[in-house]
Amino acid sequence: MGALSYGKYLRLKELLACQALESAKAGRPAHDELLFIVTHQAYELWFKQCLHELDAVVAIMGAAFVNERDVGRALHYLERVIRIQGVLLDQIDILETMTPLDFLDFRNLLTPSSGFQSAQFRRLENRLGLERTQRLRYNEADYEAALDAPERRAVGAAEREPSLFDVVEAWLARMPFVRSPEFDFWREYHANVTRMLDEDRDTIERKAQLPEAARRAQLEELERTRETFATVFDPAKYERLRAARQRRLSYPAFLAALMIMLYRDEPILQGPFRLLMALVEIDENLSLWRYRHALMVHRMIGMKIGTGGSSGQDYLRRTVEAHRVFLDFFNLSTYLIPRSLLPALPAEVREQLGFRWNA
Amino acid sequence: MGALSYGKYLRLKELLACQALESAKAGRPAHDELLFIVTHQAYELWFKQCLHELDAVVAIMGAAFVNERDVGRALHYLERVIRIQGVLLDQIDILETMTPLDFLDFRNLLTPSSGFQSAQFRRLENRLGLERTQRLRYNEADYEAALDAPERRAVGAAEREPSLFDVVEAWLARMPFVRSPEFDFWREYHANVTRMLDEDRDTIERKAQLPEAARRAQLEELERTRETFATVFDPAKYERLRAARQRRLSYPAFLAALMIMLYRDEPILQGPFRLLMALVEIDENLSLWRYRHALMVHRMIGMKIGTGGSSGQDYLRRTVEAHRVFLDFFNLSTYLIPRSLLPALPAEVREQLGFRWNA
Amino acid sequence: MGALSYGKYLRLKELLACQALESAKAGRPAHDELLFIVTHQAYELWFKQCLHELDAVVAIMGAAFVNERDVGRALHYLERVIRIQGVLLDQIDILETMTPLDFLDFRNLLTPSSGFQSAQFRRLENRLGLERTQRLRYNEADYEAALDAPERRAVGAAEREPSLFDVVEAWLARMPFVRSPEFDFWREYHANVTRMLDEDRDTIERKAQLPEAARRAQLEELERTRETFATVFDPAKYERLRAARQRRLSYPAFLAALMIMLYRDEPILQGPFRLLMALVEIDENLSLWRYRHALMVHRMIGMKIGTGGSSGQDYLRRTVEAHRVFLDFFNLSTYLIPRSLLPALPAEVREQLGFRWNA
Amino acid sequence: MGALSYGKYLRLKELLACQALESAKAGRPAHDELLFIVTHQAYELWFKQCLHELDAVVAIMGAAFVNERDVGRALHYLERVIRIQGVLLDQIDILETMTPLDFLDFRNLLTPSSGFQSAQFRRLENRLGLERTQRLRYNEADYEAALDAPERRAVGAAEREPSLFDVVEAWLARMPFVRSPEFDFWREYHANVTRMLDEDRDTIERKAQLPEAARRAQLEELERTRETFATVFDPAKYERLRAARQRRLSYPAFLAALMIMLYRDEPILQGPFRLLMALVEIDENLSLWRYRHALMVHRMIGMKIGTGGSSGQDYLRRTVEAHRVFLDFFNLSTYLIPRSLLPALPAEVREQLGFRWNA
Repeated sequence: MGALSYGKYLRLKELLACQALESAKAGRPAHDELLFIVTHQAYELWFKQCLHELDAVVAIMGAAFVNERDVGRALHYLERVIRIQGVLLDQIDILETMTPLDFLDFRNLLTPSSGFQSAQFRRLENRLGLERTQRLRYNEADYEAALDAPERRAVGAAEREPSLFDVVEAWLARMPFVRSPEFDFWREYHANVTRMLDEDRDTIERKAQLPEAARRAQLEELERTRETFATVFDPAKYERLRAARQRRLSYPAFLAALMIMLYRDEPILQGPFRLLMALVEIDENLSLWRYRHALMVHRMIGMKIGTGGSSGQDYLRRTVEAHRVFLDFFNLSTYLIPRSLLPALPAEVREQLGFRWNA
Repeated sequence: MGALSYGKYLRLKELLACQALESAKAGRPAHDELLFIVTHQAYELWFKQCLHELDAVVAIMGAAFVNERDVGRALHYLERVIRIQGVLLDQIDILETMTPLDFLDFRNLLTPSSGFQSAQFRRLENRLGLERTQRLRYNEADYEAALDAPERRAVGAAEREPSLFDVVEAWLARMPFVRSPEFDFWREYHANVTRMLDEDRDTIERKAQLPEAARRAQLEELERTRETFATVFDPAKYERLRAARQRRLSYPAFLAALMIMLYRDEPILQGPFRLLMALVEIDENLSLWRYRHALMVHRMIGMKIGTGGSSGQDYLRRTVEAHRVFLDFFNLSTYLIPRSLLPALPAEVREQLGFRWNA
Repeated sequence: MGALSYGKYLRLKELLACQALESAKAGRPAHDELLFIVTHQAYELWFKQCLHELDAVVAIMGAAFVNERDVGRALHYLERVIRIQGVLLDQIDILETMTPLDFLDFRNLLTPSSGFQSAQFRRLENRLGLERTQRLRYNEADYEAALDAPERRAVGAAEREPSLFDVVEAWLARMPFVRSPEFDFWREYHANVTRMLDEDRDTIERKAQLPEAARRAQLEELERTRETFATVFDPAKYERLRAARQRRLSYPAFLAALMIMLYRDEPILQGPFRLLMALVEIDENLSLWRYRHALMVHRMIGMKIGTGGSSGQDYLRRTVEAHRVFLDFFNLSTYLIPRSLLPALPAEVREQLGFRWNA
Repeated sequence: MGALSYGKYLRLKELLACQALESAKAGRPAHDELLFIVTHQAYELWFKQCLHELDAVVAIMGAAFVNERDVGRALHYLERVIRIQGVLLDQIDILETMTPLDFLDFRNLLTPSSGFQSAQFRRLENRLGLERTQRLRYNEADYEAALDAPERRAVGAAEREPSLFDVVEAWLARMPFVRSPEFDFWREYHANVTRMLDEDRDTIERKAQLPEAARRAQLEELERTRETFATVFDPAKYERLRAARQRRLSYPAFLAALMIMLYRDEPILQGPFRLLMALVEIDENLSLWRYRHALMVHRMIGMKIGTGGSSGQDYLRRTVEAHRVFLDFFNLSTYLIPRSLLPALPAEVREQLGFRWNA
């Protein structure tokens, strides 16, 4: 028994006994293997923390009723994940102080273990909402192939449970004000969009020095933009985009997200806006981390096979774009129009979006 | 006359008069336009600084004789560029505090100006060694099309002058020790590589749980690796890679760079090793900056055309990989073998790679 | 006439003509002087941006009525200032790539100009709320002594206008709910604090291995804490702290800030809580920047006099603590009690702190 | 048996079982306690890594003969420590996402454990060279009082073994070239210093607008500078500084370090120069970390006692300056003179400082 000490509280004896060098076992200790282990262990500690936060956020946002107090808390946890991602990125700088030749001193001893076997990272991807159909296959096998049985169960569970994407989508889809009957927001928005696109077309046609071919290309692109906007106003067109996997959000969720982007200054939408932006940033940081990871692997092992028998950097590089989860929120900017063209909210709507106190 | 004051020295009056808001001229000042201007101006100031450093490095490394004192200085300037790149990356975080809707308040007023018109950035790319043939076309036009006449001259000059890539390559190509007659390094290296690859093949064949298809794929990849190694020992094969634009360095420069990677601990090679790694880091940072830039543009304008009439984010995203300059140094790791297999340098060679004082 | 180009928009011709090397004028150009100029100019550009944001925040928060829409906007601008501070800190890393010996190549040519003459930085300090009486004297002169006449006017005006501290304090002081009559919050809070402190005393008295002297010291400290808490409940005691310059906020503003800390989860308090935390972070970053600046000056010039004739690093180091503005918000944690001891808000109060929609 | 998997290699089962929440044991789990534990465990992992690197550096630099190959390796490890320190700093940003009120949910449960009980951090300080006499006392007890018996033994051993400061000092002290008989470097240096100081005095006397009092102060400071320079040339004066604890390096080590600063471009001195600068940066980062730590504690617990019964932030804030180890290298800039005044090295000396190959 006895008073709680720092070392006991943090279980330092156990924690600091977890670094077992394969190179030492093989009788030729490699100085840099500790760095390799410690960096990966630090990653796993932070993955655990991220899962803890994401679990909480999914629980909060997955409730039948989410009030603003809850949104505030969910946002707070997501902002913490963003800070952690900053450290995850910086840890690559540390690992890159290991030169390729130093890695070779123990690389072969690690076969066939591989970072692709991180069950926590797979759970993290599933928790965020990465879909099975979206995942690139690796070594012609499903992603769980590299995991052992208990890990596979944990990861599978995370895949079946609602993800962050799922609960945010459901929360958006049931936002009441979007379907407010006495305010035909979307019709007015439609009219203003049309006006804006017509002006854009004029801009392109007026550009004096633009080569004819470029002008044609730009006008064609503008018409594509007009087509894209059409998906806002025509659910059938939107659903075609979804079927083609260019959009993932349901139509009502998409409309709510767009509304939040447009009226983010309204008190009741400030929290939701920050929450969507936090998801965008998490997605962005994860992409950056994947890209930096790919560059590091390239630098470290060139074009040879990875420790798990993979041609890893290619796979990693392709996941940068393929494994993104919240792309729809990036694409929302496509549908924005300048504030000056934005339909003014009627006073009674605006009041309802505010605080009771100010009323 | 008069004593030099801080304000006069830094020409603050002129500097702080360079921020002219188009939105103010148009009679509806947009709060965020100053941020847009200041961020881009800070970029241009740092670009000027980077050009200053790169010009100095090219002058140093392009001399007929480059001693170690010079390498130290060149390295120092490159390390400064790396620090500056850190700030260039962070500045994107600042610019991203501008939301898409805020940007829309003045975006149309900027047409047709565009970041693609940064002459200093083009010079920077040319100074590093980006080749005209490598450049992606943008709006179906050459990259200078967006520049005015004096800018085009400056950028064109930078394209014709030797680049950092050129001078580093020439410096590597004439490194004397690589061709040392009394030490047949490359033959011994060849033998050791063969031994290592044979062991790798055994590893793959021994992997119990590996599905047959995966094993075949890995063995094929190994044979490709063997083929790649063959390019080290057979100049004709190496030249075929170059013809296919998979390598850019001349054969002697490539061998010298590989030698530096392998024997980087020798005193005379420590500086050159650091220099090559600095180039790798500069390339990596530039790629990251392009990628972050592409993500920001996506987030900011979705899939609409950029301020210069471009579908910018696509172009940007493709330059991330297409515009890399020092890829060959990343690929060097492909040819490394473990230190334990590395041919020992004969005492007299080793002595020559050291300092006079220690002799 | 003439389409707007990137270069014209950003006034690059003028901007890139503002770097005039004194060492070049003196006939012996120093390579690193450009870095010195560019870094300081980048600082001044960002200072201008920070002033732009702070001016906007002061205007917003200084209005007679500040609604939640306004708080959101003010917060957004403050968060931008925080991002900019991140770059200001990183820029020191860049400047530190200049070695002391390289600085000596042109240091004497800059006399008597000095960073202490940055009028924008003085305005920034004034805008935040640094008080004249708080400022350390430097070279036995007031801080404006180093400025020229127009600068002195601008800085003086910034000193007389309401600062960010002033407007935030006034906004806090008039928060209505703090004085809510039907809810005697502070009495219940007082009772709970007393209970908590009594428990803390027990903890200290129970610590078995604590040396007697240490126990006494801790108990004395606890009593001091009790005394400090007393200032929450007794305006006269609080005013004594203020008179001793240990607190700066008015009593009602102090109570409102504490309330925000305690009930930050309530929807209407989430924005205000974030705003106070942003001020804390700005203060923290400014302190860090001052400290890093002091370290850099120490490293750069040792114990010799600075370019402006100052024994600069000493002055800088003392400003780290002396020139802090929002210390009161740091100190708020002193008065927190665990959530479990926190008085529950009555339903009707809680409802008023929420959104109309949720009602 | 079975192939090495990622999870087995990293002992993830054990590692991820080390997070035991006291709040869960007490029956009211606090969401943020995991963050508190994980952050501290990540710190301890990185401390272990830093100790691993510093042990290696002390072993290398403590050898009877240190060649340039060794200096290169030692430098490489120190640069890794610097990268790790970057993450240690960023981890504070993560921990600061825990608000004071959230910390209160479990803070009392941790009593009396405290970060002051980190045995690894104490070993780290000792390994760098922090002296017992330099340490601030904390709660009126020696720093080991907070450790248990085995920790105390480990920390005590680290205190008795040669530290990084010790071995670097010894290595500097025996640098041969400093005492080279045929080149009376220091006499010529003395003459040039005298000339430079005379010019500085003229500068001050010529400053037109300087108030008389300030001029007198500056002239007095200049004379103090002259006195300081005198310590370079007069061992007795230097020893007086040491006796007053204003310098720590032995006289010969001090001269060698100054020589390295002045002739850092010579090939043989480039590595040593980088090594000294790495020590400066490690010291600076540690100071920054202490300062940020102090700010965080202030923000987190205000002026109440810490988890270990300490008035922690005061102690922490005072260690920022009191616990610095490599201050002497910061102070070296005091003794620099412009390159133009620097005595030229005779050709034969210069040649000896270069590589054999270039000869």
